[in-house]
Amino acid sequence: MLTIDLKGLLTRIREEKPLVHNITNYVVMNFTANTLLAMGASPVMAHAANEVEEMVTLARALVINIGTLSDPWIAAMLLAGRKANEKGIAVVLDPVGSGATSLRTETTRKIIRDLKLAIIRGNASEILSIGASDTVTKGVDSLHEVDQVADMAKATARQTRSVVAVTGKVDLITDGARVIRCRNGHPLMGKVTGTGCAATATIAAFAAVTPDAMEAAAAGLAFFGLAGEMAAARAQSPGSFMIALIDALHDIRPEELQARALLEEG
Amino acid sequence: MLTIDLKGLLTRIREEKPLVHNITNYVVMNFTANTLLAMGASPVMAHAANEVEEMVTLARALVINIGTLSDPWIAAMLLAGRKANEKGIAVVLDPVGSGATSLRTETTRKIIRDLKLAIIRGNASEILSIGASDTVTKGVDSLHEVDQVADMAKATARQTRSVVAVTGKVDLITDGARVIRCRNGHPLMGKVTGTGCAATATIAAFAAVTPDAMEAAAAGLAFFGLAGEMAAARAQSPGSFMIALIDALHDIRPEELQARALLEEG
Amino acid sequence: MLTIDLKGLLTRIREEKPLVHNITNYVVMNFTANTLLAMGASPVMAHAANEVEEMVTLARALVINIGTLSDPWIAAMLLAGRKANEKGIAVVLDPVGSGATSLRTETTRKIIRDLKLAIIRGNASEILSIGASDTVTKGVDSLHEVDQVADMAKATARQTRSVVAVTGKVDLITDGARVIRCRNGHPLMGKVTGTGCAATATIAAFAAVTPDAMEAAAAGLAFFGLAGEMAAARAQSPGSFMIALIDALHDIRPEELQARALLEEG
Repeated sequence: MLTIDLKGLLTRIREEKPLVHNITNYVVMNFTANTLLAMGASPVMAHAANEVEEMVTLARALVINIGTLSDPWIAAMLLAGRKANEKGIAVVLDPVGSGATSLRTETTRKIIRDLKLAIIRGNASEILSIGASDTVTKGVDSLHEVDQVADMAKATARQTRSVVAVTGKVDLITDGARVIRCRNGHPLMGKVTGTGCAATATIAAFAAVTPDAMEAAAAGLAFFGLAGEMAAARAQSPGSFMIALIDALHDIRPEELQARALLEEG
Repeated sequence: MLTIDLKGLLTRIREEKPLVHNITNYVVMNFTANTLLAMGASPVMAHAANEVEEMVTLARALVINIGTLSDPWIAAMLLAGRKANEKGIAVVLDPVGSGATSLRTETTRKIIRDLKLAIIRGNASEILSIGASDTVTKGVDSLHEVDQVADMAKATARQTRSVVAVTGKVDLITDGARVIRCRNGHPLMGKVTGTGCAATATIAAFAAVTPDAMEAAAAGLAFFGLAGEMAAARAQSPGSFMIALIDALHDIRPEELQARALLEEG
Repeated sequence: MLTIDLKGLLTRIREEKPLVHNITNYVVMNFTANTLLAMGASPVMAHAANEVEEMVTLARALVINIGTLSDPWIAAMLLAGRKANEKGIAVVLDPVGSGATSLRTETTRKIIRDLKLAIIRGNASEILSIGASDTVTKGVDSLHEVDQVADMAKATARQTRSVVAVTGKVDLITDGARVIRCRNGHPLMGKVTGTGCAATATIAAFAAVTPDAMEAAAAGLAFFGLAGEMAAARAQSPGSFMIALIDALHDIRPEELQARALLEEG
C-alpha cells in the first residue's frame, strides 16, 4: 500500500512557486521553462561559471541535464552542484545520451562521483551506462526494457546513493531498497522532444517541496505522466499533443493527481 | 489626451518588414523569432563577436537581452551596441534577472554605461536593480508593485537618458518627464516563458519604424498586451494560450490596435 | 516523367527511424527535433568538438546549419563533416544567412571546400552567395526569384559536386545536369521561424534512407511542403499553423505523399 500525499505536494508547488535552477540543453530550454511555469513552479536558466553558484543559492532545486554538452558547461554544472550540495539544495541529474559518446558517459560518471545527487532520471540505456562500461545507446532512445534494468537500477541507486528513476513504458523509481512503479504516461510522449527532460524538471519541482527523494521522483513522474494521458485524450498528433501537455500541467488539480496517479510498490 | 498613430506604425512594420537583430537568451530565441515574424517584422539572431557588428548594420533595431549570459556574449553585446550607436540604430535592452546575480546586475550597469540605449524594458525588480544596489529578485519574477517603482523608473530614465518601460499589471513607460501607462495585457502572459522578452522584441520592431522611443515602447506594449487579451479570449491554459498569442500578433489589424490600445498619460 | 518511390522512402523512415545528427542553430533546435521525431526519424543534437566525431558515426545523416555561428561551432562542424565523409554518412548543409555577413559567407565556402556535401539547401540569396562574392542578403530573407537563380544553382551544383536545393515559391533541385521542381508548400511557412531549417533536416532524414541525393532532396521538400499545405487547411495564423505542421509531418501516410507530391522534371 503506497501513500504519498500527492495532493499536498502539488498544492505546495502551486502556492510556493519554488525557483528551479536549470543547467540544461539548448533543445529543451523553452519547453522545460514552460513545463515548470505551467505546473506552478518558477524556472530560471543560467549556465555561466561566474554566475551559477550565486544563482543556485536562490533556488530550491537544481537540474543538471547533459543533452548538449561542452566543457564550459560541464565546469558550471560541477560548480553549481557543489554549491547546491553545500546549501542542502536538491540536485537532480538527467544524463541525456549517456552511453552514446564517451564525453557523455564520462561526464555522467564524473558528476555522480563529485556530487551528491538526490535523483537521477534517465531511460534504461542511460541508467545502464552509469554502471555498465560497454553499453551503447542509439542516440537518446532506449534499447533495453525496464524489466531488464530493474536490478541494475537498484545497484546503481546503492552505488550512487541516489534515487534512480528509469522511465519507459512503466517507470521505475528506486533508492536501492524500495521500488515504486509508475504506470502513468502515454506513447505520444516519445514523439515530442524534451518530454524526458521536462519530466526531470518536474521531479525537481517536487524535490523543491519535499526532502523525500523517492516521493519527489514518484510524484513528479505520476504528475507528468497523467498530463500526458490528459493531453492524449485531446490530441492524437505530436504538435497539438505537446501543447495539450503544457495545458494539462497547468490544469491538473491536486485532488485529480491524487485520484489518478498509478503508483505501486514493488 | 494621448495621440499615437498606432495604426500607422503597425502598418509600416507590416509593409517594411524591418530587420531586428537579437542578441538574446537561449530560452526565448524561437518564441522571439516567431513573435517578430508573426507581427510582420524580420528577425535575425547572431551572437559571435566576429559577426555582430556587420549584422547589426543590416538591421533597423538591436535587442540586447541578458537572460542566459556568459562573457563572450557580453563582449558581443557591447560590440554590436557600439556599432548600432554609431549608425543611429535603436538599441533596446532587456535586463533579464538583473538584481538576481552580480553578473547580471553588473552587466546591465556596464551596458547602460557604455551604450546609448533607446529603451530599457524590464519588470519592476529588474529596473530597480539598475539604480538600487541591494535589490534582490527572486529569479526573474517581480517583487515590487509598479506603483512603488514609478519614481525610481523616472529617475532611472533620467540617469540613463533612455526611455524606461516597466511591465507588470499596468505597464509604465517614461522618459523621466512624461509617463504613459498601458493597461493592455492578461495574467496568463506570466505563465508562458519569454513573454517579457517577446514584448521587448516587439518594442524594438516599433522602434525600427519610429525615432520616438516613448511612442515605440507604448505602441509595442499596447500591441503585445492586446495580443494577450485576444489569446485569452480563445485559450485558458498556457500551452494553447502561447499559440493563440502568436496567432493574434499576426491577426491584429492596424485599426484594431488603434481602437483597443489602453494607453493614457500620467 | 518523374518516378521516385516516395511511398517506399517514407515507409523506410518510419520503420528504420534513422538517427540524424544535427549541428544546428539555437533558434530552431527544438522545432527541428520535433520535425524529425514527428515524421518518424530520430534526432540528436551535439556540437562539442570532443564529441561530434563519435556522435556522427552513430548517425545515418549529418545536418550542418550555420544559423547562429561561432568559431567553436565551425570547428565542430568541420570535424563532424570530415568523419561523416570518411564513414560515407550523408552531409546536408543549410547555409543560413550566407551572404549577409562575411563570417557566414566564408564559413559556407570553407565547409564546401573542405567537405563532400550530399546536398546544400538554401533560399536563392544564400545559394547565390556561394558563387557570387558580392551578393548581400537581407537577413535570411530571399532577394532573388527562383527563376533568376536556376542557372547559378546548376553552376553551383557542378562546382560543389553537390545536389543544390533552392527553396522559394517553387523549389528547385539540381545536380548540375537534371533539374526537379517541387510545387508543394504554402506561404504561411514563411511566417514560422525555422521552416527552412526543418526542411533541411527533413531532406537529411530522406538522405539517411537513400543514397540518391536528388531523390532525397526532392522527396524531403515534397513531404515538407505537403505538410505545409495540410497545415494551412487547418490553420490560417502562424502559431496554430506551426503546430498543425508538426501534426501533419506525423499524419501523412506514405501513399498520400506519393499521391500528392508535386514534383516534375525540368
